[in-house]
Amino acid sequence: MFEAIELGQSLSKADFKTQEQQLRAELLRVQRALTESRVATLIIVAGVEGAGKGEVVDRLNKWLDNRGMETHAFWDETQEELERPQYWRFWRRLPARGSIAVMFGGWYWDPIHQRAAGNIDDAELDDAMQRIKELERMLSADGMLIIKLWFHLSHQTHEKRMKKRRAESSHVPHIGNGQSPKEYKAFLVTAERSLRHTDTGECPWHMIEADNRRFRDISAGRVIGARMIERHKGSRVVERRNQVHQPVVTISDQQKTILDKVDLDAELSQHDYNKLLARYQTQVNELFWRAYDAKRSTVMVFEGWDAAGKGGSIRRLTNAIDARLFRVISVAAPTDEELAHHYLWRFWRQSPRAGYMALYDRSWYGRVLVERVEGFAQQHEWMSAYQEINDFEEQLIEHGTILLKFWLHISPDVQLQRFRQREKTPWKKHKITEEDWRNRNKWDDYRRAVNDMVVHTSTGNCPWTLVSANDKYNARIEVLKTVCEQLKQALD
Amino acid sequence: MFEAIELGQSLSKADFKTQEQQLRAELLRVQRALTESRVATLIIVAGVEGAGKGEVVDRLNKWLDNRGMETHAFWDETQEELERPQYWRFWRRLPARGSIAVMFGGWYWDPIHQRAAGNIDDAELDDAMQRIKELERMLSADGMLIIKLWFHLSHQTHEKRMKKRRAESSHVPHIGNGQSPKEYKAFLVTAERSLRHTDTGECPWHMIEADNRRFRDISAGRVIGARMIERHKGSRVVERRNQVHQPVVTISDQQKTILDKVDLDAELSQHDYNKLLARYQTQVNELFWRAYDAKRSTVMVFEGWDAAGKGGSIRRLTNAIDARLFRVISVAAPTDEELAHHYLWRFWRQSPRAGYMALYDRSWYGRVLVERVEGFAQQHEWMSAYQEINDFEEQLIEHGTILLKFWLHISPDVQLQRFRQREKTPWKKHKITEEDWRNRNKWDDYRRAVNDMVVHTSTGNCPWTLVSANDKYNARIEVLKTVCEQLKQALD
Repeated sequence: MFEAIELGQSLSKADFKTQEQQLRAELLRVQRALTESRVATLIIVAGVEGAGKGEVVDRLNKWLDNRGMETHAFWDETQEELERPQYWRFWRRLPARGSIAVMFGGWYWDPIHQRAAGNIDDAELDDAMQRIKELERMLSADGMLIIKLWFHLSHQTHEKRMKKRRAESSHVPHIGNGQSPKEYKAFLVTAERSLRHTDTGECPWHMIEADNRRFRDISAGRVIGARMIERHKGSRVVERRNQVHQPVVTISDQQKTILDKVDLDAELSQHDYNKLLARYQTQVNELFWRAYDAKRSTVMVFEGWDAAGKGGSIRRLTNAIDARLFRVISVAAPTDEELAHHYLWRFWRQSPRAGYMALYDRSWYGRVLVERVEGFAQQHEWMSAYQEINDFEEQLIEHGTILLKFWLHISPDVQLQRFRQREKTPWKKHKITEEDWRNRNKWDDYRRAVNDMVVHTSTGNCPWTLVSANDKYNARIEVLKTVCEQLKQALD
Repeated sequence: MFEAIELGQSLSKADFKTQEQQLRAELLRVQRALTESRVATLIIVAGVEGAGKGEVVDRLNKWLDNRGMETHAFWDETQEELERPQYWRFWRRLPARGSIAVMFGGWYWDPIHQRAAGNIDDAELDDAMQRIKELERMLSADGMLIIKLWFHLSHQTHEKRMKKRRAESSHVPHIGNGQSPKEYKAFLVTAERSLRHTDTGECPWHMIEADNRRFRDISAGRVIGARMIERHKGSRVVERRNQVHQPVVTISDQQKTILDKVDLDAELSQHDYNKLLARYQTQVNELFWRAYDAKRSTVMVFEGWDAAGKGGSIRRLTNAIDARLFRVISVAAPTDEELAHHYLWRFWRQSPRAGYMALYDRSWYGRVLVERVEGFAQQHEWMSAYQEINDFEEQLIEHGTILLKFWLHISPDVQLQRFRQREKTPWKKHKITEEDWRNRNKWDDYRRAVNDMVVHTSTGNCPWTLVSANDKYNARIEVLKTVCEQLKQALD
């Protein structure tokens, strides 16, 4: 793979000057065009030690307009980053639509180096590459232009540069340590395996011979320019749009859904409710302090029909928890900063710190519920979302986050009763809008969407809890009980 | 001060129940109203140890709708917070318009406890209170409702609770440590001094007797309800608007401005320029690595006339700096998240981490330049901004941030030449818009605004550097040279 680009290419000073001038003008022009068309561009700069990744990035910062452009290295992770799932550090640095981010190593650096150092095995490396592939596919589908550059050095040049670096004891901190020839070889084996797995049609790797600095920089600039121009011309977008997905129809109209399995007759007397409420609230309080001590964070998702009692259940839970520990995130229309990113970005950014807790009143599942039913997301978008969401949740769980998901289920009759009752209560009136009535008319569409959601995302790692909520007392206690059980299990 | 509220007030269980019901409905109603009218509400909960601040906050979370409401304690500061000026932790937690934030202790906790512990003296405490007063005044003027609650315990009750706490070895982490009677007395002296300084007409302290829990909670709820209703009725806003400020006219049309002192004839030959550029760029590179090692962050502000060469000067600087270390922040229209906060919030949120650097292409000075001239800010708003900006910058400097401010000055003739030239260059054409021509017509207004800006904000701590920029070479070298000198001075 790498030998193929060891061609000894170079560029004279004069040629460099001429080509640079033209390239700069071109880069600036296309950068402006992509800013205007609100394309997010991510440039990942990777390669062997000593290939001069830093120099390339400095050059790019010179050539491009560095307003609307940011460079990120992940060399000194902050405590806040360590307290969250691994990819949080990348998500918070992703470029917004219309801007450019340059990442040193990006998500490749850690797994490749871990494998080269022998800390993980091939299977684990492949897993990591699989995750990367999914992420890049997802971001590309969202319109991001991802340009991945790999800078290669021949064995001889590499050795020469490492020698020089060791002699120099340069002041500039390098991202990696100097590699010995043996390390270089091991690294190339790992790198090749990684690149092979992630060299996709949408996000190909661009291999650049880095022995000659001028040739290296012009080549990098050219690749970037070409990819940006190609994106500007929209060829990739068209390709994407034509790629029609077939819907996975999991139920037909006549069939039962998973929701029919919920026993909607479950009830609790007020007496039993009060008793159980007190018992579980005490438990919940203790359990969350234990989770805090254990530095385990918790994320809870509350979804359900309008008027199913999400707010009430959340309140019964939070009433029992120290207000310093939790945050209720009510998912409404995204802000414009959120709209400038992938739809999962707003949820990544809310990841709680170690020991803390986030309760979502509606969540990322909006993608496969309201956005699907109302047509806000195209079919291929919500169809891909199951996988994307499963990946996201898997990452939370891997990090040690305790994740709970509730669907509060009621019958259409009970919903109607509650709507009417709300309309009569002066201080609840605001809770019932035209939109609620409209959603109600789409009950069957939602029924189907909920079924598909549960089928696709109720995983072994993180099952859905379907709550019988025709009786509010029953719903609240079911939620509290489940929380206690799951927390106990996770913490023991 | 505190004895005046030691009245032994209490509330029976039955009375509590009746009053609670009414209060809850009232609180929810006014919360909704303030959300709709986009008022940000900040509730600061402070007081003596053992007064039950945590219980009160839990109660508020129960009474109010905790969607759109967050609780913050500053008990376990993160590394990212410690790497920034002290108030960054508060700014990042300030409520957006339409939402509520509850802060334990808020900005009061640290100085009061530092003084009580004897780590700072009275003068330092007073300084801290002065800063708080300014901040609260500024946030109130921006429309924030600040409700400050102080919970007091009589000597006897305090002692009883501390005894109990020591015996219990409760699991719940408390914000402070248990106080001895002696510490309690010392604390009250400090607290009184602090409260006295910050008990302003706009943000008064509400003192609540906390010996009886039911009385305490109902009182807290009542105060909050009353303040919110009062705010909703708008009485405070009206009062504010009537408070007309007289402009501090520092120059009349005929007089010279500070800008006339700039020698616009300064030039550099290309030869000298190239030589000096190389020299200073090498220095700059070394200096920023030194700053990185010393964990000193740098903030640079570039302001100047349109076409004065801000971008070019920034690029000559960043070309010399490792791309991992800096970020160029181009100040354009605020996002809606930024609009939901005080105008300084967007700059606070950009504070660089220790050792890193932020370069602003236009900055917070927009408030007293374009916003003043175009009338986007009312007179009392931009008039107050000088003080607000000085406070902000003082906080950066106290934290050890190296702050540099440049005004790039050109003559109207040179601007005209450059405008015309830009219109002729195909890839610079986009840089010249209708707005630039409009701004040009307001040269005199801007001249006045720049003069006032320099007069009010060129402080000993952080002077403006007025750069002679008719000659681009000269401008770039002046900037680089100043950066080198200032950095050297700061780091030595």
